Amino acid sequence: MTKPVLTLFAALLASSASAQDLSKGTWIDLTHAFNSDSVYWPTANMFEQTEIFAGHTEGGYYYSSYDFASSEHGGTHLDAPVHFAEGGHSSDEIPIEQLIGPGFVIDVTRQSAEDVDYLVSAADIEAFEAEHGEIPQGAIVLLNTGRAGLYPDRETYMGTAARGQEAVADLHFPGLGVDGAELLVARGIGAVGLDTPSIDYGQSADFATHVALMTNNIAAFENVADMSALPATGSTIIAMPMKIEGGSGGPLRIIAHLP
Amino acid sequence: MTKPVLTLFAALLASSASAQDLSKGTWIDLTHAFNSDSVYWPTANMFEQTEIFAGHTEGGYYYSSYDFASSEHGGTHLDAPVHFAEGGHSSDEIPIEQLIGPGFVIDVTRQSAEDVDYLVSAADIEAFEAEHGEIPQGAIVLLNTGRAGLYPDRETYMGTAARGQEAVADLHFPGLGVDGAELLVARGIGAVGLDTPSIDYGQSADFATHVALMTNNIAAFENVADMSALPATGSTIIAMPMKIEGGSGGPLRIIAHLP
Ligand SMILES: [Zn+2]
Ligand SMILES: [Zn+2]
Repeated sequence: MTKPVLTLFAALLASSASAQDLSKGTWIDLTHAFNSDSVYWPTANMFEQTEIFAGHTEGGYYYSSYDFASSEHGGTHLDAPVHFAEGGHSSDEIPIEQLIGPGFVIDVTRQSAEDVDYLVSAADIEAFEAEHGEIPQGAIVLLNTGRAGLYPDRETYMGTAARGQEAVADLHFPGLGVDGAELLVARGIGAVGLDTPSIDYGQSADFATHVALMTNNIAAFENVADMSALPATGSTIIAMPMKIEGGSGGPLRIIAHLP
Repeated sequence: MTKPVLTLFAALLASSASAQDLSKGTWIDLTHAFNSDSVYWPTANMFEQTEIFAGHTEGGYYYSSYDFASSEHGGTHLDAPVHFAEGGHSSDEIPIEQLIGPGFVIDVTRQSAEDVDYLVSAADIEAFEAEHGEIPQGAIVLLNTGRAGLYPDRETYMGTAARGQEAVADLHFPGLGVDGAELLVARGIGAVGLDTPSIDYGQSADFATHVALMTNNIAAFENVADMSALPATGSTIIAMPMKIEGGSGGPLRIIAHLP
């Protein structure tokens, strides 16, 4: 081969390593469907669907239509930075570049099975990096606590099925620790998600992980569905929130592409 | 070069032609933000946002959270096949492969400027294909009527700002004709969208275009935002609806990637 051809060949190899052909490969939906069982914070209004019409019309055609209502925070959803940071990005303001990127999936299923109040630490993230390389700028980091299979059984998934302010003290589920959040901020990630109701663990009273992420304009994805089919690296994550003007969060459709 | 190397080289060239590197290039958001001005059908309940809290808490951190409510059909949204086809896919059932694909943008701005009741015809689609090649299976077809800039002024965008059943007869905006819909069904497209409130034109009484598409499990995207930055071919469209179980539609985040 001549040198220019070899150079072109190398460039094509490099680009094919980072580009994914979306018309091929496999899609994995990481989104729980919204219904009356969707998991919401004990104090938040749950998802309601109202039938307007469903059936055959006088015009001869079939027709169905529904209204819906809920808190922004429930089911598989976005926490926009403004949820815990004054002046932070709202749901409609997050750059698309932060919502689409290479997936880095950190498996903490063993630790979470042993300790329902487990906090994913900077040490956990560094152990992941020792094996898979440093998490790059723009990465979408997903924490797999292995608890998506408990959804939507609130008793086992979040520690209590009770509703109202008095239920909050009984919440138990793993989350991301503040030192872990600070390390991800330092890496310049696009966003971080997990398969529990909140990026702070259930027993948090100060929501310090939300604050650490969101004062740096990093969004969180909560109640993400089963990640067990995802590799540690090599996926592309697409996380598209409902574009609510000024919203503090909202329904999220999150999917992964595997080459 | 040896024959195996030449074959590999050709395969890499071919894959780089169809694959888009999502970490490079440009994103275009084709989604209107949801707010109190969002455009809804005259008979449908409009988007409402309710503040639960926004301000500094006793805990020392900032916090904001909202509830929201609306019809599934308003703003930039999905029409799932079950909206007009008994047994058709609901919002949560549409295969992801039909929601992500190569964009084919048919420009009918001139025709729509001359005739507010314009119907995009099979002949319009065939004229597009004569220039750009046949629309392939899995394509996301977008009709650019040039009217996204009128949104959300209901009077100019859809012919009337009035609400209620008596306003429906005054609706005027372009749509896709039944012959056009049938041609797109024959092509095996993934979905079709446009920058008006409905895939049937404003004066439709039988919604025959909805029926033609949706009895073939093809979804529609309505009130899509400004497409003027999109090329006729070469974009990748990602259209992620809210995953409402049994839903007839719902909020849609639709974006385009340009290489
Ligand atoms: Zn939340
Ligand atoms: Zn609709």
